Amino acid sequence: MRSFKCIIEYDGTNYSGWQRQRNTRMTVQEQIEDALKMIAKHPVSVIAASRTDAGVHAYGQVIAFSMENSIPTGRLPIALNTLLPKDIRVKQVEEVSPEFNPRFQARGKIYHYLLDHSPVQSVFLRYYAYHVPNPLSVEAMREGAAYLVGRHDFSSFRAIGCSAKSSVRTIRRIEIFREGNQIRLEYEGEGFLYNMVRILTGTLIYAGLGKLSPGQVKEILEAKDRTRAGPTVPPHGLYLVEVFYR
Amino acid sequence: MRSFKCIIEYDGTNYSGWQRQRNTRMTVQEQIEDALKMIAKHPVSVIAASRTDAGVHAYGQVIAFSMENSIPTGRLPIALNTLLPKDIRVKQVEEVSPEFNPRFQARGKIYHYLLDHSPVQSVFLRYYAYHVPNPLSVEAMREGAAYLVGRHDFSSFRAIGCSAKSSVRTIRRIEIFREGNQIRLEYEGEGFLYNMVRILTGTLIYAGLGKLSPGQVKEILEAKDRTRAGPTVPPHGLYLVEVFYR
Repeated sequence: MRSFKCIIEYDGTNYSGWQRQRNTRMTVQEQIEDALKMIAKHPVSVIAASRTDAGVHAYGQVIAFSMENSIPTGRLPIALNTLLPKDIRVKQVEEVSPEFNPRFQARGKIYHYLLDHSPVQSVFLRYYAYHVPNPLSVEAMREGAAYLVGRHDFSSFRAIGCSAKSSVRTIRRIEIFREGNQIRLEYEGEGFLYNMVRILTGTLIYAGLGKLSPGQVKEILEAKDRTRAGPTVPPHGLYLVEVFYR
Repeated sequence: MRSFKCIIEYDGTNYSGWQRQRNTRMTVQEQIEDALKMIAKHPVSVIAASRTDAGVHAYGQVIAFSMENSIPTGRLPIALNTLLPKDIRVKQVEEVSPEFNPRFQARGKIYHYLLDHSPVQSVFLRYYAYHVPNPLSVEAMREGAAYLVGRHDFSSFRAIGCSAKSSVRTIRRIEIFREGNQIRLEYEGEGFLYNMVRILTGTLIYAGLGKLSPGQVKEILEAKDRTRAGPTVPPHGLYLVEVFYR
């Protein structure tokens, strides 16, 4: 058996998220496992760094799998991309030790959340950004974000169904960029709780709209109470951009 | 009867182009005429500045129509956008004289052509840019483009089926920008022949790939022979960005 690490990109629009599940539309995991089965001639199980939700996109999802096959590593991206639909692409493949686990060995992740701040929703961003036409203060969003950076208990920003034992996480960086009618929130951290980036973004949008003061973002963090934070913004603005390893 | 000028944006992916035709998939014109009929309570004919081909996108298509209706002009964008699919948006509406003809009165147009220059085709650009993974010299493309700016006979760059009487046109500006893995060719001119922007782009890509020298772009222009120019690149990289009037 040989083991591989791949970096993949996908448009999450047409999928029920990463993880294989019963009775749903196709998932990204199924597409990749189906393609690998064609190459390996045996069933292959794939593990991903992040089990992204339905509609969430990825520029740099990291996956790992093992298979019996003598195909040269350098030919694997083209072999897989020929079998995969155009909304999933393998960008990079390397052979790794069979111990490599992309989920548990991840040391950090970057997520982006994209807002479409056009007066009328852009036709080109309708599946790729969350439309917020109302006036937004990017400065207030940045002030609110500054309180979130660092090691904190993020109980206020975890989904009700989140099963992680601890809600303490470290956010290394939140940066907010405005380019024309697009506002991009960049989050870098060791790891994130379930829905955490989407709840943080919903809360920072409330600060940008003036529904909350930047100082209230600090109070919400300290309250450790999900009901105090802003809404969970929709999945289609979220991108898994990069996963770091030692 | 009141007459209106609208600026509209559309994602051309799911349409057989602008113009209503028999026995095809839906066209953008049909969608807009159907929405207007609901508002006007009578059939409405719409004229566009440019009859874009299947797959071509628009940021700033200009259309005009007349209807019997007392709806305030300011409410028309929302009324239309409520009825239209999400891949067609009305961005701006103003009342104009019934003589306004967006096609014959246009004094200039801007088109963009977008290239995806990623090693592996971007999932996010698969309907929005033409994938050219091979090495490209943007400098050679710019040198070739310089020969095309000005008033010339563009017979070498018109589609075989083009019915325009004269093939003389004026290109005011061609600029080429590279941002990350995207290369954007911007064309501004008084008007363009059928498929002209796509054939110009195919020729400039040949210059960028080294299949032609920049000086040969000048020879092709002077040859007035379509068979000498590069290929007609696919429609999905083309955007009608702006139309100018007096």
